[in-house]
Amino acid sequence: MKTLETLQPLTHRLVEIQHLHSAASLLSWDQETYMPPGGGEARADQLSTLQTLAHDKLVSPDIEALLDKWVDPATGQALETSGAPWDEPSRALLREVWRDFSRAKKLPSDFVKKLSRECSLAQQVWTEARKKNDFKLFLPNLNTVVTLKREETQYLGYKNSPYDALLDYYEPGATVAQLAPLFATLKSRLVPLLNRVVVSPVRIDDTLLTRSYDPARQVEFGKFVLTAMGYNFDRGRLDLSAHPFTTSFHPSDVRVTTRVYEHELPACLFSCIHEGGHGLYDQGLDPSRYGTPLGEALSLGIHESQSRLWENCVGRSRPFWHCLYPLLQQTFPDQLGGVDLDRFYAAINRVQPSLIRVEADELTYNLHIMLRFEIEQDLIEGRTQVEDLPGIWNERMKTSLGIVPKRDAEGVLQDVHWSLGAFGYFPTYTLGNLYAVQFYDQVCRELPNLKAEIEAGRLTVLTKWLNQKIHRWGRSFTADHLVQRVTGRSLSPEPFLTYVEKKFGELYSLSGQA
Amino acid sequence: MKTLETLQPLTHRLVEIQHLHSAASLLSWDQETYMPPGGGEARADQLSTLQTLAHDKLVSPDIEALLDKWVDPATGQALETSGAPWDEPSRALLREVWRDFSRAKKLPSDFVKKLSRECSLAQQVWTEARKKNDFKLFLPNLNTVVTLKREETQYLGYKNSPYDALLDYYEPGATVAQLAPLFATLKSRLVPLLNRVVVSPVRIDDTLLTRSYDPARQVEFGKFVLTAMGYNFDRGRLDLSAHPFTTSFHPSDVRVTTRVYEHELPACLFSCIHEGGHGLYDQGLDPSRYGTPLGEALSLGIHESQSRLWENCVGRSRPFWHCLYPLLQQTFPDQLGGVDLDRFYAAINRVQPSLIRVEADELTYNLHIMLRFEIEQDLIEGRTQVEDLPGIWNERMKTSLGIVPKRDAEGVLQDVHWSLGAFGYFPTYTLGNLYAVQFYDQVCRELPNLKAEIEAGRLTVLTKWLNQKIHRWGRSFTADHLVQRVTGRSLSPEPFLTYVEKKFGELYSLSGQA
Repeated sequence: MKTLETLQPLTHRLVEIQHLHSAASLLSWDQETYMPPGGGEARADQLSTLQTLAHDKLVSPDIEALLDKWVDPATGQALETSGAPWDEPSRALLREVWRDFSRAKKLPSDFVKKLSRECSLAQQVWTEARKKNDFKLFLPNLNTVVTLKREETQYLGYKNSPYDALLDYYEPGATVAQLAPLFATLKSRLVPLLNRVVVSPVRIDDTLLTRSYDPARQVEFGKFVLTAMGYNFDRGRLDLSAHPFTTSFHPSDVRVTTRVYEHELPACLFSCIHEGGHGLYDQGLDPSRYGTPLGEALSLGIHESQSRLWENCVGRSRPFWHCLYPLLQQTFPDQLGGVDLDRFYAAINRVQPSLIRVEADELTYNLHIMLRFEIEQDLIEGRTQVEDLPGIWNERMKTSLGIVPKRDAEGVLQDVHWSLGAFGYFPTYTLGNLYAVQFYDQVCRELPNLKAEIEAGRLTVLTKWLNQKIHRWGRSFTADHLVQRVTGRSLSPEPFLTYVEKKFGELYSLSGQA
Repeated sequence: MKTLETLQPLTHRLVEIQHLHSAASLLSWDQETYMPPGGGEARADQLSTLQTLAHDKLVSPDIEALLDKWVDPATGQALETSGAPWDEPSRALLREVWRDFSRAKKLPSDFVKKLSRECSLAQQVWTEARKKNDFKLFLPNLNTVVTLKREETQYLGYKNSPYDALLDYYEPGATVAQLAPLFATLKSRLVPLLNRVVVSPVRIDDTLLTRSYDPARQVEFGKFVLTAMGYNFDRGRLDLSAHPFTTSFHPSDVRVTTRVYEHELPACLFSCIHEGGHGLYDQGLDPSRYGTPLGEALSLGIHESQSRLWENCVGRSRPFWHCLYPLLQQTFPDQLGGVDLDRFYAAINRVQPSLIRVEADELTYNLHIMLRFEIEQDLIEGRTQVEDLPGIWNERMKTSLGIVPKRDAEGVLQDVHWSLGAFGYFPTYTLGNLYAVQFYDQVCRELPNLKAEIEAGRLTVLTKWLNQKIHRWGRSFTADHLVQRVTGRSLSPEPFLTYVEKKFGELYSLSGQA
């Protein structure tokens, strides 16, 4: 049997490339947390050098020569021509390295640099345009980015939709053909459910979440919850940033950030739990596989499943707060002393169609994503022109959420993603939501005591399960293979739909079926 | 005239190398400030990759080909063979790049890696040995490092002493032949001066500095002083670390650190001023020359002159505290309200022979350095064996400072430098002290109002002078050329000796000459 030992000349080089990526990640983390305001321009140049070097090293002739020897370029699978067969990890590693290599190789170096420069420029203009609520200001840059992304799909190649070539970057193997029916099913049941919630006589008061909560105490409580989840502060830290994120330089150094608003308790609380879910994934990757695909997260959708599982299935559930709510009350006695668990539980689960995706509740969140999924497809497939986006956006918001933004800053201009050229990224958020519930259903079946354990604060029972089933495998399997291994079936919208119909049916006293 | 424009193919490559160095500096900064404890091992690997890549890029064939075209390898000077002559900056740039290139080229890549690995190991053992007060534990590692450093001198080459090859790394051009008489003069006058201070009937009470000072307020005051010095927080930050240091990723992002002890007011205060001096140098380098020698600090001695000038000539002077002491009293009214300026001034200038270099006062500090200078020379020239170091150390402490450490942890084991292989580094501290006073004498002559300006808190008058005369030139000149340009003469111990004889003569009521 040929093992990973045989692949050392390759993995040795991959680890060196990963050192550059890890350094770049630290530069980015620093940029969002501690970098002085004047440092941005030089930082962008330094990052660009690190990324270009990493790219050049990946497509270098010596890596190409090794892959030529070991991989069948027609199938992307390990060649089984001479001597002993490859073991499972070696085959997975070769498959995934080939994937990264051949994608990178397809893009001309000049194109990569041009795209990167135009996106960097577009992001700056987007920031300005959002501030000024001026879509026209952003229009020329967005046009350029969309044109380049269309060009990119030609380099990368695709079978059906050019959008597939972009989806594949964030969620390997995902296609419009697979996602469109999935999302259609979701939408066909979420919209009626939302309509029933909106007209329900039940009114949930969540003003208690906007009382004055001392920011330092909020962060302390966030740290406490992270620790309870099993996030290891010897191999991580929690800092503040404008937008919460998780970044990893190695499984021994995985950092999360949060933001904190005095009058908005959920902001810090749920971003800590959400990023904690991401952080547990990255801390749970196999350190001995660092630098190789076997030590990397599988996909953005699977990554998001970990954050959503913790944030929603756990963090917005009764069993979780059974144990933690008394501690939260103790932390904020004046604000929450007189609020019972039921009122708190309802408040953190209130459904309210809103304009801003990142503030959306569990039920409406996916509707925000589907709107973007449809628009991105139309843009990349060339059916929609960039200048028509504001109108299209508002019209679809009306259809799916029943509200229309008054300003583009709260509509088509709200997300940074398009300015970064990250078309195909949004769908992974919804995939994450679906995977999350499917995984959570499974763990509840496998560990019948789980809810009791969570009620007792023993959250790491769940952490261990996730680690054994998901984290430690890195990219050993495709997403579809993983979800089949873990849950016995492919991804389905059913678990998620059943979950929200039950949860919000109870909360809003909806009787029977829609 | 051929200008820097001509050199663009070279500077373009140098900037890319500098991006790697800047990234490595951020990784090191993070390691000392925010890195979680578990992150150390992976960080060391990442740093090593960045440094190896930077080294490989510097000695790469394409840089060699460019230098071959432009530099005379016999003299290291720009070739004036064809076409128009080079302008001054181009000649300086070629001279300095050649210096860096040819030094790097002389060291075999395997040797560099071995030295780096052994030093990394030795540093870990040193930490342990100091903690356990066990020199024997450190002995084998120190032996290895010294052997390797001797080997390094053979690769690098030298005219007289092999120690010159190491000195040159930190202080280009410095030699034993130049430093030995300088240091001998210093010692011949410092030791008698110290003896007179020790027997002086004047007793300075500095216990007021060990009262309880709120750490957060100490740091706030440090920030205030840094701002007054002209340190720009838009292009910098102040953080805490075990040992204060300054690091720069670009003139637009220069960071200083400090440490703070509740019962030791000078620790935070003077490290802020000291690092602030370093920080002003780095913030004052020409950003348009970033990545090339013209945008880099000249030498460690010149760098240290900036920190010592601020810390000692300014920060331990009466005019400085004339303005700032009332503000310090206001910050710590209970601790300092009843202490007048004279008592405070005397306390921060108290002379006391002590065992630990980093805690030494202005007068005894250089004696600590000379002891190390002599020992390093003997070690590298092969006259001293590593196992004899503890005895030699204690004997020489007795001769120069009149005290003997009871434990090696407070003696031969106190500094990290030797474990890092940084032989030849210590002398730059004393050079810094000498340059500092020589520069300060000069600025006082050129700006007769300087003391009044400082008394009024207008410290940036000095900052601007230093920037014009020193900072902005980078490595355009050699150290000797710079000090001649700025002060009209080569480095001399006289200004420093005159300064300490006057200052401590007054403080300790010493009359007449020794």
